[in-house]
Amino acid sequence: MTEPRALPGSATPLLDRIHSPTDLKALSREQLPALTGELRDEIVRVCSVGGLHLASSLGATDLITALHYVLNSPRDRILFDVGHQAYAHKILTGRRAQMPTIKKEGGLSGFTKVSESPHDAITVGHASTSLANALGMAMARDALGQDYHVAAVIGDGSLTGGMALAALNTIGDKGPRMLVILNDNEMSISENVGGINKFMRGLQVQKWFQEGEGAGKKAVETLSRPLASFMSRAKNSTRHFFDPASVNPFSAMGLRYVGPVDGHNVEELVWLLERLVDLDGPTILHVVTKKGKGLSYAEEDPIYWHGPAKFDPATGEYVPSKSYSWSAAFGDAVTELARTDPRVFVITPAMREGSGLVEYSRIHPNRYLDVGIAEEVAVTTAAGMALQGLKPIVAIYSSFLQRAYDQVLHDVAIENLDVIFAIDRAGIVGADGATHNGVFDLSFLRTIPNVDIALPKDAAELRGMLKAAQGVGGPVAIRYPRGNTEQVPDGTWPDLTWGTWTRERPGDDVVILAGGKALEYALKATSDLPGVGVVNARFVKPLDAVMLREVAGRARTLITVEDNTVLGGFGSAVLEFLNAEGLTVPVQVLGIPDEFQEHATVESVHARAGIDAQAIRTVLAELGVAVPTGV
Amino acid sequence: MTEPRALPGSATPLLDRIHSPTDLKALSREQLPALTGELRDEIVRVCSVGGLHLASSLGATDLITALHYVLNSPRDRILFDVGHQAYAHKILTGRRAQMPTIKKEGGLSGFTKVSESPHDAITVGHASTSLANALGMAMARDALGQDYHVAAVIGDGSLTGGMALAALNTIGDKGPRMLVILNDNEMSISENVGGINKFMRGLQVQKWFQEGEGAGKKAVETLSRPLASFMSRAKNSTRHFFDPASVNPFSAMGLRYVGPVDGHNVEELVWLLERLVDLDGPTILHVVTKKGKGLSYAEEDPIYWHGPAKFDPATGEYVPSKSYSWSAAFGDAVTELARTDPRVFVITPAMREGSGLVEYSRIHPNRYLDVGIAEEVAVTTAAGMALQGLKPIVAIYSSFLQRAYDQVLHDVAIENLDVIFAIDRAGIVGADGATHNGVFDLSFLRTIPNVDIALPKDAAELRGMLKAAQGVGGPVAIRYPRGNTEQVPDGTWPDLTWGTWTRERPGDDVVILAGGKALEYALKATSDLPGVGVVNARFVKPLDAVMLREVAGRARTLITVEDNTVLGGFGSAVLEFLNAEGLTVPVQVLGIPDEFQEHATVESVHARAGIDAQAIRTVLAELGVAVPTGV
Repeated sequence: MTEPRALPGSATPLLDRIHSPTDLKALSREQLPALTGELRDEIVRVCSVGGLHLASSLGATDLITALHYVLNSPRDRILFDVGHQAYAHKILTGRRAQMPTIKKEGGLSGFTKVSESPHDAITVGHASTSLANALGMAMARDALGQDYHVAAVIGDGSLTGGMALAALNTIGDKGPRMLVILNDNEMSISENVGGINKFMRGLQVQKWFQEGEGAGKKAVETLSRPLASFMSRAKNSTRHFFDPASVNPFSAMGLRYVGPVDGHNVEELVWLLERLVDLDGPTILHVVTKKGKGLSYAEEDPIYWHGPAKFDPATGEYVPSKSYSWSAAFGDAVTELARTDPRVFVITPAMREGSGLVEYSRIHPNRYLDVGIAEEVAVTTAAGMALQGLKPIVAIYSSFLQRAYDQVLHDVAIENLDVIFAIDRAGIVGADGATHNGVFDLSFLRTIPNVDIALPKDAAELRGMLKAAQGVGGPVAIRYPRGNTEQVPDGTWPDLTWGTWTRERPGDDVVILAGGKALEYALKATSDLPGVGVVNARFVKPLDAVMLREVAGRARTLITVEDNTVLGGFGSAVLEFLNAEGLTVPVQVLGIPDEFQEHATVESVHARAGIDAQAIRTVLAELGVAVPTGV
Repeated sequence: MTEPRALPGSATPLLDRIHSPTDLKALSREQLPALTGELRDEIVRVCSVGGLHLASSLGATDLITALHYVLNSPRDRILFDVGHQAYAHKILTGRRAQMPTIKKEGGLSGFTKVSESPHDAITVGHASTSLANALGMAMARDALGQDYHVAAVIGDGSLTGGMALAALNTIGDKGPRMLVILNDNEMSISENVGGINKFMRGLQVQKWFQEGEGAGKKAVETLSRPLASFMSRAKNSTRHFFDPASVNPFSAMGLRYVGPVDGHNVEELVWLLERLVDLDGPTILHVVTKKGKGLSYAEEDPIYWHGPAKFDPATGEYVPSKSYSWSAAFGDAVTELARTDPRVFVITPAMREGSGLVEYSRIHPNRYLDVGIAEEVAVTTAAGMALQGLKPIVAIYSSFLQRAYDQVLHDVAIENLDVIFAIDRAGIVGADGATHNGVFDLSFLRTIPNVDIALPKDAAELRGMLKAAQGVGGPVAIRYPRGNTEQVPDGTWPDLTWGTWTRERPGDDVVILAGGKALEYALKATSDLPGVGVVNARFVKPLDAVMLREVAGRARTLITVEDNTVLGGFGSAVLEFLNAEGLTVPVQVLGIPDEFQEHATVESVHARAGIDAQAIRTVLAELGVAVPTGV
């Protein structure tokens, strides 16, 4: 094999030589700090176009470099929780040239993805899944008599997730050989929360690896002694070896705990990983990193720089967004609502910024709860609040609500409790792709008894629905998309009769039924088609039986449009109703096809799925409506 | 108020005086041990009819008595995780006379239920929800400026659930005044698992309350000192006060840990609760109990006596069941399958006995994993295994799979991994009621891309499906009901073409489409109606498009029958197909109505829902089929 050469005069002479983890191993350890500097520069350049996961990727660069230096991917499996911090991993595993395509249609995923590279051990996007996946891999290896390594990198934020904690509990119990790297950057996407986090903040970073024979270094070398003796000691005691405070939730669960160590000292990390990776049983290495490491402005404000807009890499200058998001519309509405109603209480699973709740949390700190990345806890905590007289609102992304399906059903719906679900990022989200598309909520919520589902067409209707929901009783889901809407003045609380649809455009022959984002498309599609009826089908449950019966009784055909899977969603609800009523009008059901939608712009996915204005016009033309060319 | 009197000659003179917690408080502390003895006798008598939660209720009796003695329910909120251990609570809160109706139609629930009594703080049935509910209640109290106590009783088994651990993490972080009682009986329904459990086994039960001034007693008294000073100490340190081993996952999370203490010494429990209940912040009291306490045969085999069949209270004699359950059919099949296929690996979330896996776990211990009550972990661990070459089977109850909806979607379905879901207790389960009915799985699974869904009609077809599923690739759900089926010989592996339906009875005019339990009803309904067609619609996804097209093209009407909600399930799938194909045959969609079904026999719920044989005959008669009276 010819050794790859750096380009003459390149700013990244080391990185230019690396096209796979094998090339990385050709470097000396002493070259690694320089390499991680180059990697950071590259990541900053890539991310300066905006919309990418900058701060977490900078924080994990040294750790990822050390892991690939010591382990042999893809034979050894390296798992990244959530996967958004793995840009250095993508670059080191042969995807450097494609980095500018990240999150774009046909380009690299913003997360790790099995089909993208053999080095991506899991396909991911949601937090807290890496440990159970790694447990499964380690047990599969042992069951099949194989011999590779399994290492999972999980952030302290992801560790607030119940399934991560439960997986840790089973890992400690079953004890397969594996490495858990706790990438502790003292925050997840939002500020971090949770008792374990408090505990971790009390620990001092250990300097195990100073020159000379420090106690820590000796202690780690001790681990390399015959495993039988080590393990027998480990089994006879729940004490661990390295925690100076002797109070450790990880060692209590049965994992060998090592740390905390400096996650930016790549040479020390290599030294340590080489010694830990062959140890029997599960080991947790607690690594302390800084989000945004190496980029002063990102280190100072890692929450903004988690996923910044387009910026100047040299100065960090960026143009603040002037658009008004659906999230902001929700945040403004609920902040105002809580001023007059002391029963309002807002719960978020670690999405204060994303859900538009920064101001709310400042103005109403005693009626605000961030439970960490624990959607199940968010929903059931709301149930407890509703049982005791509050009117809680769970602000949650659609794809994350999937995690609390049973809690909605078992803890909220059975007793018909007054919990409002403010479901953000409903429908196609675009660049984050299949893991984050919220295209199942209409289907899975609709089947739960007692749950009403509303889709506002704009900020005013969102406010009207929030206000009205306070009065209807029982669980209510209000879903709205990623993206922007028109701002409305404070004090806008339009009246709204619960469960009713409205006619947006007259017309009886061909009638389009659509709510939310889909209504926007329907209106656009018919702006020059006066004969086509358009109904704002703003409630998916209950349906507006009166209007549906009336419309169906007269129409030659109905078209339902929804930013949700075609299976079991709004269109199916209409079919069920018509069938039950013996109405035989044909229905064109437009929605997201029954396959996962890869990342691209929202508009592009909607076009491919056949629910955008152009697609609706095509259907109208097929039905004989005279449709001028173009919209 | 007249003091209630014991009946003359009663075997339960103390219990006879208690009709509410107020009556309980009229007893002296010294009378409490005698009372709990009477309570236990009562519980054994009630449970001897079979099918009730005996062992856990016996184990929690002293603790429940102490809680009601110290707290003031219903003003104070006492939450029971799962709720199946709360029989003493039901008896002490005025429901003694109704105990013989427990789990029967119109009678008491087998769990706690808000609508049943003001003393039941939560409606429950699934594990691990009590802590998030209690957190919500404590925060609601504080937000509304109220002043009651909140105490949650959670077993060590329930604590293996992710949402319980995550809730504990938030409780430790936010620190509201509340009491968590860890009822540690060293096992859940099955053997207990998990690292935290191992940790707890290493602790010695403390004798804090000996006569005299033991260190423990003094230490607890110290807690009553001015709270400000205590809390400032607590905040400055992650150390706790009582754990002798100085290694404690609970104190690390930020809770004040006290224990472990003897959970059968009711007087000591009262002494302790009186001192702990007013302390600021969250306290966890670790109580060690014995499942089946006071009943020798139940103490010896608490797994059997968790929910025993009918027995003689004096001797413990019972008649072992001779019926062959669907669970046994699955267990036998998979045990045999694993002999020849080394890639088979079975995962259960704490349901070894219930899922028919006792023998499997003995014969294939290295390809068996119990993850505790952590359904999310069960599914994602299977994903990890599938990624590394195994063919994992997740054995899970339908209503518990609700907890892992996102894991099926995000971790298994996106990458189309080879994971089989063996879904037991699908459809109406009867006595366990609304929380346990598995009537949503067809709807919520059907909307997930890549997931196939099969419904076997009998044990042979279940085996055929399991075998065939190994070959089809991608996620497969095989759902079967609670109840019995015919045993088939080992080696029965009928061939089966994936995705095809079969005709069970010829007939083209009126055709019934049904799979699984519903098919059983359809066949019974039509046994004397030779003209009515019956199709074994054994795949809900994919539908058998060829047969459906053929049948729909000829029929005057179709009837779909399913043991699943009418919303978004099999019937809806048929409607979607017919609408997409432009076929206008009317369909009678029979299924479970869109409301939660209370406990009763399976047969009774099916009759009310209108899906049993008689209901089908009624529909047939309405359609003009000549139906003789009676079945």
